[in-house]
Amino acid sequence: MTTDPALEANVFARACTSRQVLQNATGRWGVLALAALGEGPHRFGELRRHVDGVSERMLSQTLQQLERDGLVHRRVETTIPPKVEYSLTPLGAQVAEHLRALIGLLESSMPEVLAAQTEYDRTHRP
Amino acid sequence: MTTDPALEANVFARACTSRQVLQNATGRWGVLALAALGEGPHRFGELRRHVDGVSERMLSQTLQQLERDGLVHRRVETTIPPKVEYSLTPLGAQVAEHLRALIGLLESSMPEVLAAQTEYDRTHRP
Repeated sequence: MTTDPALEANVFARACTSRQVLQNATGRWGVLALAALGEGPHRFGELRRHVDGVSERMLSQTLQQLERDGLVHRRVETTIPPKVEYSLTPLGAQVAEHLRALIGLLESSMPEVLAAQTEYDRTHRP
Repeated sequence: MTTDPALEANVFARACTSRQVLQNATGRWGVLALAALGEGPHRFGELRRHVDGVSERMLSQTLQQLERDGLVHRRVETTIPPKVEYSLTPLGAQVAEHLRALIGLLESSMPEVLAAQTEYDRTHRP
């Protein structure tokens, strides 16, 4: 989907908006934020502890992109101090389901991946 | 999985190798290369045309990472000039299936995403 909404979206086309949406959802921190929110709503600080290594700035920017794309919902409770809670929209929940399945597959395949890495390094870095 | 292979892999831990493997598979070009190879084996040049916008250098580096992680198989035919064909390993095919499902979901949800973006921009950039 470029400028004409009647055109079909195609992530392989560099100018298609869907490519950027895919890259927000699968980006370095986007994929982990969505997977974490797939476990349930999180406050900002909780999410930051869950996604080990993310900076406040990067997490904030990532959540803004995901909110703008309609995958994440941001709810502000008007308490003092205000509480901000992030959760998945229905579309975000579907996206997170795919990502969590992918993560589960990769985590459980690590012995196979590590064996492949060892073999690659043995044959490519003599 | 860090140094002790008995530890369970966890992409949320920054030092776990599985995080890097996830990020290779979902990286800017990794996700598109895997999705393209999910349609069938490709020669390098074919893949480069398919993944619109990727440079020769970035595609080459991406394929090397995916080969090292055991997701992509590189086959060299000893013709003159040699032909190099890339295909998915069985694990790569499973990964690509998840990515293609995610891409299909996002492409078909673009009207919803674009509506969310418009609403976000209306309320956040007055």
